[in-house]
Order: sequence, then C-alpha cells, then structure tokens
Amino acid sequence: MADIMGIALGPVHHIGIVVRDLEDALTLYHGQLGLPVESRHDLKAHGVRAAFLGAAGARVELLQPTRDDTGVARFLLTRGPGLHHVCFEVTDIAATLREVAADGMELIDTAPRPGAHGLVAFIHPRSGQGTLIELIQV
Amino acid sequence: MADIMGIALGPVHHIGIVVRDLEDALTLYHGQLGLPVESRHDLKAHGVRAAFLGAAGARVELLQPTRDDTGVARFLLTRGPGLHHVCFEVTDIAATLREVAADGMELIDTAPRPGAHGLVAFIHPRSGQGTLIELIQV
Repeated sequence: MADIMGIALGPVHHIGIVVRDLEDALTLYHGQLGLPVESRHDLKAHGVRAAFLGAAGARVELLQPTRDDTGVARFLLTRGPGLHHVCFEVTDIAATLREVAADGMELIDTAPRPGAHGLVAFIHPRSGQGTLIELIQV
Repeated sequence: MADIMGIALGPVHHIGIVVRDLEDALTLYHGQLGLPVESRHDLKAHGVRAAFLGAAGARVELLQPTRDDTGVARFLLTRGPGLHHVCFEVTDIAATLREVAADGMELIDTAPRPGAHGLVAFIHPRSGQGTLIELIQV
C-alpha cells in the first residue's frame, strides 16, 4: 500500500550542524542563544559526539567528528563548520527507503540503522539537489 | 527586563535551502518527497522567489535567487545549492537583536525587516560558528 501511496515525509525532526568543538558550540547555542540541551550522545559507531537542543518542534543536532574517516569529518575539512543535513520523520522507514530507491534516488544507507533517536537512513545529496536528507522512524 | 533575562531562542521556524530553480526543487520536495506546499512568495526586496513546505512544525523554505547582487545569489555561485540558514522564532525581535549585539555577535541586520512571515533579521555566520542564523518574530 505504501508503494501506491507514494512518499510522504513527516515533520522535520532535527537540523544537523557540523561543529569543530562540541563544547564551543554548546557555549554558543546553549550559553549565548539560550537553547535548552535535550540530550548528549557519544555515537562511536557514527564517529561523532552529538548534542540535541531545543524545547519544542524540530531540534538542533550539533555534531563533532571524533575520527577522520567519516562523512562528517570530510565535510568539516572541505566545507568548514555549518549546516550539514535536515532530518524528516517517516512512519515506516523501510517502506520509504524502498519507494525512494524505486523513484531512482541514490541512498547512502540502503537499510535503516540505529541513530540517537530511532532508525535512520540518509539520501545522497546528489539526489537531494545538494542537500543531505536524513529519514528517521522514531 | 529582556536584557537581564538573556537571549532565549524559541522553536525552529524554518530551514532555508538555496536552489537553482524553484520549480525543479518543488518537483523534488513536493512531487517526489510529498511535502505539502504551504505558500509561495516573490520577495522582490530580498531578490528571491521562495516556497514554504511542510504540514507541521518547522517549515522548509526553498529559495531561488532572482538577481545577482544578494547573499543568496553569491551562496549559490560559491557553494552551490543546499542548506543555507536556520530560522528561530523569538517573542521580541528588537530586544533579541539588542541582546545579541550587546553579547558581541555580528549582525547582518541591525534592525528587523519584513519577511514572508513576520519581522526577520540575520546574525552573521562569523558569529554563528559558520551557520547563518535568522530570527523571526511572527
């Protein structure tokens, strides 16, 4: 049924921002700008330290690479710190990934993998007109 | 009072994405990914055509430059299409701008100006650790 209905992204779950140093970034976003810190994570499998901020609606995810062999580390090296990805909620991530692939879009993750808040997968920026799009099933 | 309370950004209002062609971008975000279109705008004073998408929570703003002498046009030329800014709601934008300036952050707009959804102002990415931050009072 989902294949007939087509893809329907839900609300923005978070915006990912790559930072050089997570503590410096928390000083800006929490200390200066007053965004509450929701949670902190050491995602060794993803090679990042992360913090989620925000009191309501879409969160801000601050991402500091902890090793050099990840997309996040390469992004920081080549583009510098800044906006990295936008993550949308979906109700059935496996079905959405099948639809996205059937639609000819290029996936970074062909199968969902565990993230900080649920199952996640990324669509390649080549299929996102330059934007890295993450999907999450919470 | 606001100066004593400090800055407290509210929810993410939208994420701005620079695109080469608004119709092509709507084909992706609306046609393929199923995000509903909330509104469309021809913001001549800002030199952009824009569309806001999303059914709930933070919106996606797609921005196509319509002339060459804007920050959006320069962004597209130098960085290519992709994530451009994140916009947070504030309850009193004039007070927030005073606090942000008093905190030593560099403003692009020292006074609020009308945007598509309310009064807006931008903080320079030099003061945002590489991220262009917009404030909006709706």
